[in-house]
Amino acid sequence: MTTNRRRAATIPDVAREAGVSRSTASRALADYGSVSPDARERVRAAAEKLGYRANQLARSMITGRTHTLGVVIADIQNPFFAGVTRGITDAAHTAGYQVLLANTDEDLGAERAAVKTLCDKHVDGLVVAPASTTEVGHLAALVEGVCPVVLLDRHAPSLPTDAVTVDNQGASADAVRRLIAAGHRRIALVTLVGSEPDGGADGGAEHGAGARTGEAASGPFPISTGVERVAGYRAALRAAGIEDTDAYLRVGTFHRQDPAVLTEELLSLPEPPTAVFATDSMIALGVLSAVNARGLRVPEDISVVAFDDAEWTRVVRPRLSVVAQPVQELGAEAVRALLTRIERGARPPRHITLDTTFITRDSVAPPR
Amino acid sequence: MTTNRRRAATIPDVAREAGVSRSTASRALADYGSVSPDARERVRAAAEKLGYRANQLARSMITGRTHTLGVVIADIQNPFFAGVTRGITDAAHTAGYQVLLANTDEDLGAERAAVKTLCDKHVDGLVVAPASTTEVGHLAALVEGVCPVVLLDRHAPSLPTDAVTVDNQGASADAVRRLIAAGHRRIALVTLVGSEPDGGADGGAEHGAGARTGEAASGPFPISTGVERVAGYRAALRAAGIEDTDAYLRVGTFHRQDPAVLTEELLSLPEPPTAVFATDSMIALGVLSAVNARGLRVPEDISVVAFDDAEWTRVVRPRLSVVAQPVQELGAEAVRALLTRIERGARPPRHITLDTTFITRDSVAPPR
Repeated sequence: MTTNRRRAATIPDVAREAGVSRSTASRALADYGSVSPDARERVRAAAEKLGYRANQLARSMITGRTHTLGVVIADIQNPFFAGVTRGITDAAHTAGYQVLLANTDEDLGAERAAVKTLCDKHVDGLVVAPASTTEVGHLAALVEGVCPVVLLDRHAPSLPTDAVTVDNQGASADAVRRLIAAGHRRIALVTLVGSEPDGGADGGAEHGAGARTGEAASGPFPISTGVERVAGYRAALRAAGIEDTDAYLRVGTFHRQDPAVLTEELLSLPEPPTAVFATDSMIALGVLSAVNARGLRVPEDISVVAFDDAEWTRVVRPRLSVVAQPVQELGAEAVRALLTRIERGARPPRHITLDTTFITRDSVAPPR
Repeated sequence: MTTNRRRAATIPDVAREAGVSRSTASRALADYGSVSPDARERVRAAAEKLGYRANQLARSMITGRTHTLGVVIADIQNPFFAGVTRGITDAAHTAGYQVLLANTDEDLGAERAAVKTLCDKHVDGLVVAPASTTEVGHLAALVEGVCPVVLLDRHAPSLPTDAVTVDNQGASADAVRRLIAAGHRRIALVTLVGSEPDGGADGGAEHGAGARTGEAASGPFPISTGVERVAGYRAALRAAGIEDTDAYLRVGTFHRQDPAVLTEELLSLPEPPTAVFATDSMIALGVLSAVNARGLRVPEDISVVAFDDAEWTRVVRPRLSVVAQPVQELGAEAVRALLTRIERGARPPRHITLDTTFITRDSVAPPR
């Protein structure tokens, strides 16, 4: 039953008419995913009755929209981004949009090329996890132009658009406080930062090794996520009366330094750390690899915590205590913010911050 | 120094003139990735001197090429596909091509929509890991048309194009023979197959549980990779005189059945298996999860082997013995095959088969 014949039919109208959920209706209309033949037929009939498809096509032609979103992720091999991408894709499909992905492997040059390619292909908007949160000129040009951009996992204060992240500083401080509460004082942080293009980041490697200088937190190529996790780490240490916050801070550079080697250096110190905090699950694999190579037991000899609830962290023995990020929700929020910008045009930038959850498992014990 | 001014300059010409490698020259010309400022300037000067850029642009306009490849992967959350994608992207960038990815999550409807979107965006060709190796009509239309397609990880005999895979049957048989050599007779295989769209695969779930019928190997929705791994498993068992090859075969359906539950069922049998073979690293996580939940030790109580050398398999204790696939090389070979089709047009289909390596670690011991 149509309720109002004067306005253009919407997906909710079609769903109501067909007696199916909005999600089913949009999947059927977008010809995507699992819809029963019966539901598909009812949606088709409802769309025809309400003139939905004709309206949608007409709107496409008027607006020039392609109903395609571009997504630029930083590292497809990191389970965090795989999960986020899943959230993005599900949310986009539900809204009737297709997703095209590009992977930059944390390389700014690759990011610039990927953004250009996706724009050339006339995507309606971009979700970007930028390789740098300061070198964003190529994105600024888009934000002010025809292609809305929403940042994901990382925010760039100089870029007047939305960003969807977790509270990285708070989550990091919370994890460190838990280690302090367990009795630890010598707590290491192992993290990676972006590298300058054109090989200019050999100095970055020095920064990484020289984390004690205090400049390394931002690295040669700052990414807000890493900067904030280091800030949270330092803040929690200072609050516990630990003055030399950088004694066990190791900031490496993506592709140039191996977290296992950084950890091995830490374990070789005269007074090695009794706990190690890894800023993502891939770094945690490097940390565990170095810990295993030394024959150390977790948590008896050394405690280990990490960002990201990768599936393997629940299967290794001992199971890893982690900072879980709401990966699917981060992706879905980014899509919602982007669609709002696409459909309603420019509006003041919003920084959407989602909560993390610390999951206590078996990898933390008091120091020996 | 130009050697021949009559023909159009090529990347090797520019590289020679600039005194850099072909790879560096193509990265500089494509404005992608790490190139030193000095090399970039020399390549620019060489390209200008040889008229390379003008030629390339002219060729682009004549051929209508966009220098973009579309890649349709089956599951971005599977480390195998993340690694393959890395190989694809590196090879494409080296050749001066950008890559646009789509993830189907093993859903045939999503694959059809993704292929359509990428074709609408005028990619020059597609690398596809198809969700089904029989339902390939949407790809057949392309193969015969303007958009070359190369299959990856999976091959479809009915599709007259190239496929790049490993020898799945041989690799699977080899892994099972190693378990037999260690003394095992009750060897389980846990695998997943594709599902029919529109919820039609409820019968598939039954097939999975009823693997003993012998029809389950192909499942409701065959994927060549899984079919061949099951065939290799059965062949190795039969060669060892084990007649009932399906007693411990469990074929589940993607998204509908949890490998941990399938494993739990196996462990509950009156005579449970003494070894379990998982057909990918994500299934292996489910197997280990069920093994851990029972309090069983690997390899003392049960041996475990898996396809795919995921990074975590080297870090868990015990380290997992695996069938390692050459993931980067699979991706690079697929790109090479696709570029040959793009540049030289139709030619007879080739099935390129790469070797796997069995990596012996610590997860196999004789049965108790």
